[in-house]
Amino acid sequence: MPEVRKVAVLGAGHGGCAAAAVLSLRGYEVRLHSRSEQRLKPLRQGITVRHAYEGVASPALLTANLNEAVQGTDLVILVVPSIAHEGYAKALAPILSPDQLVYLNPGHTGGGLHFTAELKKAGGPTVRLCESTTLTFICRMEGPATVGIYRETARLRFAALPSALTSEMLSLLQPLFPNLAAAANVLETGLMNINAVIHPPGVLMNAGWTEFTGGDFLFYKEAITPSIARVIEAVDAERRAICRPFGLSVPAFIDYFHDAGLTTREARLSRSVYRAMQESGPNQTIKAPPSLNHRYVHEDIGYGLVPMTEFGRLAGVPTPVMDGLVTLASTAMGTDYRKTGLTLGRMGLTGMSVQGILSMI
Amino acid sequence: MPEVRKVAVLGAGHGGCAAAAVLSLRGYEVRLHSRSEQRLKPLRQGITVRHAYEGVASPALLTANLNEAVQGTDLVILVVPSIAHEGYAKALAPILSPDQLVYLNPGHTGGGLHFTAELKKAGGPTVRLCESTTLTFICRMEGPATVGIYRETARLRFAALPSALTSEMLSLLQPLFPNLAAAANVLETGLMNINAVIHPPGVLMNAGWTEFTGGDFLFYKEAITPSIARVIEAVDAERRAICRPFGLSVPAFIDYFHDAGLTTREARLSRSVYRAMQESGPNQTIKAPPSLNHRYVHEDIGYGLVPMTEFGRLAGVPTPVMDGLVTLASTAMGTDYRKTGLTLGRMGLTGMSVQGILSMI
Repeated sequence: MPEVRKVAVLGAGHGGCAAAAVLSLRGYEVRLHSRSEQRLKPLRQGITVRHAYEGVASPALLTANLNEAVQGTDLVILVVPSIAHEGYAKALAPILSPDQLVYLNPGHTGGGLHFTAELKKAGGPTVRLCESTTLTFICRMEGPATVGIYRETARLRFAALPSALTSEMLSLLQPLFPNLAAAANVLETGLMNINAVIHPPGVLMNAGWTEFTGGDFLFYKEAITPSIARVIEAVDAERRAICRPFGLSVPAFIDYFHDAGLTTREARLSRSVYRAMQESGPNQTIKAPPSLNHRYVHEDIGYGLVPMTEFGRLAGVPTPVMDGLVTLASTAMGTDYRKTGLTLGRMGLTGMSVQGILSMI
Repeated sequence: MPEVRKVAVLGAGHGGCAAAAVLSLRGYEVRLHSRSEQRLKPLRQGITVRHAYEGVASPALLTANLNEAVQGTDLVILVVPSIAHEGYAKALAPILSPDQLVYLNPGHTGGGLHFTAELKKAGGPTVRLCESTTLTFICRMEGPATVGIYRETARLRFAALPSALTSEMLSLLQPLFPNLAAAANVLETGLMNINAVIHPPGVLMNAGWTEFTGGDFLFYKEAITPSIARVIEAVDAERRAICRPFGLSVPAFIDYFHDAGLTTREARLSRSVYRAMQESGPNQTIKAPPSLNHRYVHEDIGYGLVPMTEFGRLAGVPTPVMDGLVTLASTAMGTDYRKTGLTLGRMGLTGMSVQGILSMI
């Protein structure tokens, strides 16, 4: 099993820049791709990383040419929004070769299944594919060529599709990302998508405030008030209920949040999501999105709550609160997220049973 | 048919004080009741009315004794929240006599049916009962004994239960309230409950803003933003769809709002609820509720959207947006409004068909 040396990083946002910079600094041959040459331009002088890492990284190649970025690499990391997975699968189908590894960083909910289905549809090869729940780094662009990396995501859930490949892929990827930890399968990584639990209630139940002020308030510190926290708790309970018929037992949001170092032990013991948010040091200064036309809605509803409710429906688990949020978001945005979002069909699971899915993943 | 001379007004809030004062000024013998002696105390020096009416009214009696207030009157007007109807029905059952008229001002959605069912359950007499959709006056307490009456509600929908009595009761009540206009039946008055269309989206989609600031913003002018207005439009479309199988054709919210003098002709023509709110002169300065623990939730969900969805379900009309709001409110408040609110059962309609209800009302 050859080790990974050459890495294509697709996507030059927060997470893509962070991954490209850190891997470059660690001596990997990194090719950073963005569909926008404009986006790459400032990065050509080097990517400055700060905080948890310090240095100026110069990836081996920065290119807007996907072919150039991908060909000959050992590993292709997609650090792109879920809504872009379909387009990347189509574009990569004629480029990827069967010996390349593909890592969706992150896969959100159902990303691996969706990408695989689209790659197959587009005539692409069977590749070894894996995903993690969220980004490998907690990071944010602090300037056009500066990325602040605050920490590695703790014990980041990771699975290959199918899960029989997880341990092989984990041993190939852990040298690059030591914080990866094996999950049972891509359903577990997908159902640990905590963004889909927090963001939709937070943004929809602050829709007026967001639109009237352009998001001029603190999302976690000010806007996750007690009534919204109760909705988050209910969404989280539905998420965990969906897990059960699939044989998965996942931690509650508040335990995950605590274990990730994001809130106090006292808040965790209180079981109050409101308190957990109030006592979340790292999230104190995060602002609200400037509008509802934002990934907190498009991605966390369409590629978060929608696939979760689809799994719930298949397994006979009621998800009334998630359903209510999906309906409200669809109505508020004039977009039917149950159609445009990630359905069982788009994940390649049409007509399959719970058992059928479990044996496939 | 004897005319109405003696009137009991139950409830000494905005609407009760306004009704008691105006009717007193018009020479009716008015007895104003509140369950709280404290509430009545400042009113004993007279109720000052301002704006559309001017004067100081002295009702014949102010009392916290329901018996004293009601016995011997021709008409009993309940100007109380929907959630109080059950308690009043129980308390009035041994007091009311069959010749007295009862007017629910307002009945909101299903108030007449609910009150009648409770009165019967408590062994009360069969009375002639009627309701209007909202209050007869657009009014607000401006001091402990001062009520501002800005105008009469235009063409206020009014129906008796059963509707066979509507024209008789209308002729008895129009001398008191010339702005009453006959509706087909109590379903039409109930389904014209516009508060249930506007308030739940407005308050739930501003939950964080409300709780964080104590409602320190303008409800209509600032907080009914475009995405919330789209939800209001969808709720309104569901409301009108519920009407159809019951043979009712009711105006859209925006037409009603315009006809009530609350927005511009241009806004009406645009069909945009957002614009109608922006161009609503009378509502510009109305503030948000200080918390979610408010009638905008308790009453407009439990005694507004809940009975509407119940009628919808009975008639096979899907109400996904209303349902989503009810679920969200129930979760946010920790109260199952589908249980505590006005169900078909609590309206005395268990097991009845659409046709059965229509022939009963």
